[in-house]
Amino acid sequence: MDIEQLAVNLRNFEGVIRKKSIADIVNMFEDVRSEYGETIVDFGDDAAVLDTGGDEVILFAADAIWGKIAMESQWWTGYTSVVVNVNDISAMGGRPVAMVNVMSSCDTEACKEMMRGIKDGVKKFGVPMVGGHIHPDTPYNSLGVAIIGVAKKDCLIRSDMAKPGDSIIVAYDMDGRVGKNSPYSWDTTSFKDAQTVRDRFLVMQTIAEKKLAIAGKDISNPGTIGTLGMLCETSKVGASVDLDMIPIPDELELEQWLKIYPATGYVISTKPENCDECIRIFEEVGITAAVVGSINDSGLVDIYSGEQKAVVFDLNSDTITGIELSAEDVE
Amino acid sequence: MDIEQLAVNLRNFEGVIRKKSIADIVNMFEDVRSEYGETIVDFGDDAAVLDTGGDEVILFAADAIWGKIAMESQWWTGYTSVVVNVNDISAMGGRPVAMVNVMSSCDTEACKEMMRGIKDGVKKFGVPMVGGHIHPDTPYNSLGVAIIGVAKKDCLIRSDMAKPGDSIIVAYDMDGRVGKNSPYSWDTTSFKDAQTVRDRFLVMQTIAEKKLAIAGKDISNPGTIGTLGMLCETSKVGASVDLDMIPIPDELELEQWLKIYPATGYVISTKPENCDECIRIFEEVGITAAVVGSINDSGLVDIYSGEQKAVVFDLNSDTITGIELSAEDVE
Repeated sequence: MDIEQLAVNLRNFEGVIRKKSIADIVNMFEDVRSEYGETIVDFGDDAAVLDTGGDEVILFAADAIWGKIAMESQWWTGYTSVVVNVNDISAMGGRPVAMVNVMSSCDTEACKEMMRGIKDGVKKFGVPMVGGHIHPDTPYNSLGVAIIGVAKKDCLIRSDMAKPGDSIIVAYDMDGRVGKNSPYSWDTTSFKDAQTVRDRFLVMQTIAEKKLAIAGKDISNPGTIGTLGMLCETSKVGASVDLDMIPIPDELELEQWLKIYPATGYVISTKPENCDECIRIFEEVGITAAVVGSINDSGLVDIYSGEQKAVVFDLNSDTITGIELSAEDVE
Repeated sequence: MDIEQLAVNLRNFEGVIRKKSIADIVNMFEDVRSEYGETIVDFGDDAAVLDTGGDEVILFAADAIWGKIAMESQWWTGYTSVVVNVNDISAMGGRPVAMVNVMSSCDTEACKEMMRGIKDGVKKFGVPMVGGHIHPDTPYNSLGVAIIGVAKKDCLIRSDMAKPGDSIIVAYDMDGRVGKNSPYSWDTTSFKDAQTVRDRFLVMQTIAEKKLAIAGKDISNPGTIGTLGMLCETSKVGASVDLDMIPIPDELELEQWLKIYPATGYVISTKPENCDECIRIFEEVGITAAVVGSINDSGLVDIYSGEQKAVVFDLNSDTITGIELSAEDVE
């Protein structure tokens, strides 16, 4: 393994690079962000967190599917829009409550196919679509979905709380298939029954309610190391990852797996003494989990295998999203 | 006035006709809608209503801006996306809490202009943008925004509760300007200070908390009579409107005014004995309001002026949205 080359490839992976455009734009809101006292977390986590005064906080996120996938596979566009949104809530230890969508499509058939995909996602995950806005005659297909969830105020899993000394656990549903639309998607849900899927995506709620995670994040387009990098960036820490400890499905190579959006995949930081319990909880629902490294205060995210070591992100000088979290503590 | 022709023009107005495409698609969800016990209202009202067990319900809506406006005026696209979303919550008597957006743009400049518009809207209405998803390199501009709000459980203003015998009140901010992008938009906010705007759009909360409205709705793209028609459709009632009682800004003709999206405009049904108090509350914040007719059980929405009368919608045979509300009572 040429670990230096792997580090370069992971750093320059499209799923990581595309996050950079966010910062400029989010930072335009800088001077209006502090006004809003109900906002505990905004940009930069999987979902925003709003405290409206009840026992539970509201989680709120949006994601969108467009471009090639939306033009070529409308069913998958609809279905996967549910998957990614549900993950934004579940990754924070929340319970998804409802979704709304904004759909744009070339023709009625494309529109109906996206809706069929959404409906299959709704049935699978048990989260209703409660409203939306449809534009049935645009020259392109696109689908934006927003989701709300709720979580107990003191049981949130945020991405900006990792501390030096935490152990890093990655967790994946290994029973999946590389998606037909991209070598970097991994379908773990469309072919499984609803109960199995729901048990697996709700596992983060169990971990949250037992307060086992210090920080955590849904592994998404930037892949495993890119997502860990984002978690380190918002937590202002570094991390060191032993590549030999990462569980990999039999049929895949390490580099592809590290770039994949694993659909049901999480990275969490936890106290070393809680690792065994976290892993047991993941494994109980059929998710494979392993301790793969630890958080440190270096500002570097590095990977190693035996004696070889390389830095993927130097957060002292690089940015991934470049977002300054305006988060308050909720403890 | 040729009232028959006016009725035809209002019935065939693009803002009304475009609502018809919703029904087919929403009705695809029919067999999965009853599963979700937290959903009190879904498609068909200004916002969905979710009861997650606290004292307050969560309101959740999405709206989008695209096409000609998004290509020609990106600032307005951003700004107006805030206006329409805030209205969806305020029309139901709710307090807007936060928004997320999904933005698609041709280039960085278009993206920044939309963001500037959003930011000005955020400042004006005091509702934060807390997350989003940006696609900075599509061949088109579009902007979808979702919003959440909260309302006391027993103080919601829904659109499906109107009863025969209710009086109909329309309320408008008359201090506005026809928008430069469409003869059917009416800008009542961009040139006013934030406090005035906030007082006006929050008036529906006062009406909701005093339980003065039986039903109500934000007047949107279908215009005054089209919006009343949608309210009658979901309430399964009819209505009769005296055109001579409708307040009209000096510089406008009746037909154009009835087709306009008045930005700050509401139609409510109320008990006849509560009309005076409703009008007083609207007028206190500078909104002009008047009793313009009454709800009946005919299934017809008609307009009259002196001796002339014409039917705009026959809901016994026509549909506007065609959505069957799966709403439960919240009383």
